[in-house]
Amino acid sequence: MTELDIVSRLRKYSNKIGDDCAVLSLPGSRDDLLLTMDLMVENVHWVPGDSPRQIGKKAVIRSLSDIAAMGGDPRYCLISLALPKSATRQWIDNYYQGAVAVLRRYGAELVGGDLSRSDTLTCDVMICGTIPRGKALKRGGARPGDRIYVSGPLGAAASRGYSVQNLPEPRIALGRKLRGKATACMDISDGLSIDLHRLCLESRCAASLDGAIPIARGATLEHALHGGEDYELLFTLPPSLHLRIADIHQIGIMQQGTPGAITMDGKPLKPAGHDHFRNK
Amino acid sequence: MTELDIVSRLRKYSNKIGDDCAVLSLPGSRDDLLLTMDLMVENVHWVPGDSPRQIGKKAVIRSLSDIAAMGGDPRYCLISLALPKSATRQWIDNYYQGAVAVLRRYGAELVGGDLSRSDTLTCDVMICGTIPRGKALKRGGARPGDRIYVSGPLGAAASRGYSVQNLPEPRIALGRKLRGKATACMDISDGLSIDLHRLCLESRCAASLDGAIPIARGATLEHALHGGEDYELLFTLPPSLHLRIADIHQIGIMQQGTPGAITMDGKPLKPAGHDHFRNK
Repeated sequence: MTELDIVSRLRKYSNKIGDDCAVLSLPGSRDDLLLTMDLMVENVHWVPGDSPRQIGKKAVIRSLSDIAAMGGDPRYCLISLALPKSATRQWIDNYYQGAVAVLRRYGAELVGGDLSRSDTLTCDVMICGTIPRGKALKRGGARPGDRIYVSGPLGAAASRGYSVQNLPEPRIALGRKLRGKATACMDISDGLSIDLHRLCLESRCAASLDGAIPIARGATLEHALHGGEDYELLFTLPPSLHLRIADIHQIGIMQQGTPGAITMDGKPLKPAGHDHFRNK
Repeated sequence: MTELDIVSRLRKYSNKIGDDCAVLSLPGSRDDLLLTMDLMVENVHWVPGDSPRQIGKKAVIRSLSDIAAMGGDPRYCLISLALPKSATRQWIDNYYQGAVAVLRRYGAELVGGDLSRSDTLTCDVMICGTIPRGKALKRGGARPGDRIYVSGPLGAAASRGYSVQNLPEPRIALGRKLRGKATACMDISDGLSIDLHRLCLESRCAASLDGAIPIARGATLEHALHGGEDYELLFTLPPSLHLRIADIHQIGIMQQGTPGAITMDGKPLKPAGHDHFRNK
């Protein structure tokens, strides 16, 4: 059982499942609504003793990055916290301070949530964003010949053991610039190889990586290809479009071929990023 | 440390925290947005061996009831699930089937969510609803002299040990009927005494219970006063307004006095419903 298996079973319930956010039209509204939710669990996403302020920041960065991947503007946030008896008021205060500091930097507001007891410290963040109607950047619009880009060096989080000490910034400003331009876009949360595979599946294309993959300082090519949690944007542009945006890197070209198949320098590249549910 | 303590500290971050849902205005939209999120944790909200279908139903009923309490129409749902290794595909399928069956009955759609591993089975449900602009039923609008009502008999869930086998229906239709009429409204999730206390605090009023409290079959007055999870609506109407709605029960009158103070048949009634964080 993989996460992809579970998600593909869920897609029988709705055609809105499978992108970074659900995109929803409200009658009479100029904007579409973007909804995304991200779970974090102690001993899975952080370790006991990590700074609650950093955990709070990371929790909202994950969802803000999903809003960025759709080209949206973050607006409202709900946070659920399940707390063991050992959680102190100090821990809770620091967690929310970290989360709210990042939300404010990107124009979003904490507006609610829920609290419960649990043996396992768990938090769940929902962010609601908006985007002008019909402008959301989806995973499924890339065409053969489109150029593939990433928004920055990859592998930093993996090379540091996914510590919450060094957190990336969500690419909200870049996402906005890509509105009406990128044919497909998503954030790299689980690793370039698995996330590009997902983008290719949605776009019913193959891909060849033939440019230099930008590698973060201290990281290896392995980290850059298969490490998650960098939260850079992975996007495609038509070959005719040349954007004057600093720090974006062309890494390959979308191809006709088996949907989801990726080659790197002519050799097959197996998607191998993070999947919570893969049997190891 | 009580849940109320934590929530009142959070209110420094936003004036939208503290009702059943956050009520949000989107520019150019005819409707306001309602957002609510509810956590459920194994061994807190259900016990191992309970039917996953019923757990899925209960998870969404809690959030649907919050939408009902605002007078809203449920639209979209996100579900996060944190699953231990022992969770089977069958469990997951049955959980989602239960949740989706209830969502569909009330016109809402599952549109996304998240999945993670965890040692503790945990689910978190977010529902996004809508309501015509400015029409949301809040907790803070009751005035001295307003009549206090409940939408049905209380204490059923407590009398059955909060089993997921018998679940109430969220009062979506009644909530809609109360739009523009009720001066305050909330759902009874933690118990009549604590929830009426909260409504009184928000409305800066006291309350006297002097009508007969409707008690569910098999329940005691204690269950009806202090048992949670009945998900009936608690609401107030101006004395001049007589609604022809079957099965609503007048139980008291809002009073001038210490905000939050409740009397029953002339004697003080202490709020004593459920609070996850109260030290026992």
